[in-house]
Amino acid sequence: MRILLTNDDGIFAPGLLAMHSALEGLGEVDVVAPAAVQSGGSHAITIRTPVMWRTVNVNERFHGTAVEGTPADCVKLAIHAVLDQRPDLVISGINAGLNTGVHVIYSGTVAAAIEGAILGCPAVAVSMAIYRDMDFNKAARLTRRLVDQIVSRGVKPGQVMNINIPEFKPGWPRGVRVERQSIKPMAEELEKRTDPNGREYYWLGGDYTILTDKAETDRKALKEGYICVTPLQFDLTDGPMIDEMQSWDWPDLST
Amino acid sequence: MRILLTNDDGIFAPGLLAMHSALEGLGEVDVVAPAAVQSGGSHAITIRTPVMWRTVNVNERFHGTAVEGTPADCVKLAIHAVLDQRPDLVISGINAGLNTGVHVIYSGTVAAAIEGAILGCPAVAVSMAIYRDMDFNKAARLTRRLVDQIVSRGVKPGQVMNINIPEFKPGWPRGVRVERQSIKPMAEELEKRTDPNGREYYWLGGDYTILTDKAETDRKALKEGYICVTPLQFDLTDGPMIDEMQSWDWPDLST
Repeated sequence: MRILLTNDDGIFAPGLLAMHSALEGLGEVDVVAPAAVQSGGSHAITIRTPVMWRTVNVNERFHGTAVEGTPADCVKLAIHAVLDQRPDLVISGINAGLNTGVHVIYSGTVAAAIEGAILGCPAVAVSMAIYRDMDFNKAARLTRRLVDQIVSRGVKPGQVMNINIPEFKPGWPRGVRVERQSIKPMAEELEKRTDPNGREYYWLGGDYTILTDKAETDRKALKEGYICVTPLQFDLTDGPMIDEMQSWDWPDLST
Repeated sequence: MRILLTNDDGIFAPGLLAMHSALEGLGEVDVVAPAAVQSGGSHAITIRTPVMWRTVNVNERFHGTAVEGTPADCVKLAIHAVLDQRPDLVISGINAGLNTGVHVIYSGTVAAAIEGAILGCPAVAVSMAIYRDMDFNKAARLTRRLVDQIVSRGVKPGQVMNINIPEFKPGWPRGVRVERQSIKPMAEELEKRTDPNGREYYWLGGDYTILTDKAETDRKALKEGYICVTPLQFDLTDGPMIDEMQSWDWPDLST
């Protein structure tokens, strides 16, 4: 099995290193990841400037390709140029910070997995709650067991699994749950500040922790101490609305 | 009616100017848009650095807020800080270049509309095919008629309409069609080049024109000369897969 490992925290991030170790024995792992942190970068791609890359030695553990671009760039570069065959699985992470709810939309970690899916691979994104003394190795070992399960079930090309791992409080994780992505907005605020030269600016802040959903969602499962797995797809069409709109009496815009 | 107008080509882009003119009489238009071109920027948000902004006079036609950030930043800044009330409608565009198929995922234009939807507004993204002598004013007038239709139907908070306008060949547009987003990958290639100092780099290229879909999709409608309207939503959950996965026998990962 050929696995492409990437992330959005950069090729030297501890989450990627832990995931690389935990994948030992599952297959041959190629690492193509951003040279620098790309958090919040979503599914950006680099089309107006060239994409530079270099081979790097990561902590004397493995060699990888460090790309001066976005997570999605890394997956495109890997599949179209670096790897000599299409990977059987793309894994993105482990990200330092949850990617649940609308963070799925903002996340570079999830975007890399979705890019793998667009290019015809099964893909897994893995993220964990941020807390003091984060144990990436434990998270990676748990993820490996989920990946084994997903692989044994025969994950399909274009299928994305979004895995989120809660903080390791006593008794957590309480197990695995499969839930939908929440669509609730974050409790966010823009803080207005003044720079040393008197110019006003904003800094995006607010509560990025898990808000309360009444419905069963990824955010709720995490808040209750479960690992959550959410299958994702990348057709944003609002299906029920399509049917309704096709019956609308549209203006005649033909020329 | 209060309308927030934004884009991803920058506040001085001709597509935004044309859209601003075409919205005359529909309501009060506030413009909050990126200071610089953001194409391919997807749904990136700025969280690690501050977001600067300034008021600018656009071609002696109107004043707007130019934001040194992404399209999604603009919408967050507008709704949380610049505007004194939530807009009744967010319009993003007109983008120079189609946003159909998987380009919906990469698009800053669509991301701005989706951000409006996340924050509880109805939203419209508008893009047009790139060709010589693009007639943004004609595209904006057509878009206005579609917006009037959408508004009169009572578009809901969180609802996103993605409008794409074909090249104006003789007889085009042939009318309006409502179709799904295509999920086919682009015919893309990475071109390997060597810089003047002998260092290799890649440049993302390939065929960004409309590929053939057998199914009825946004790309196919555009290729056939129609304006296409696709309703979008931002829950990426793969619904059918959720049901299947909830019945899987997951490993016991409780501690």
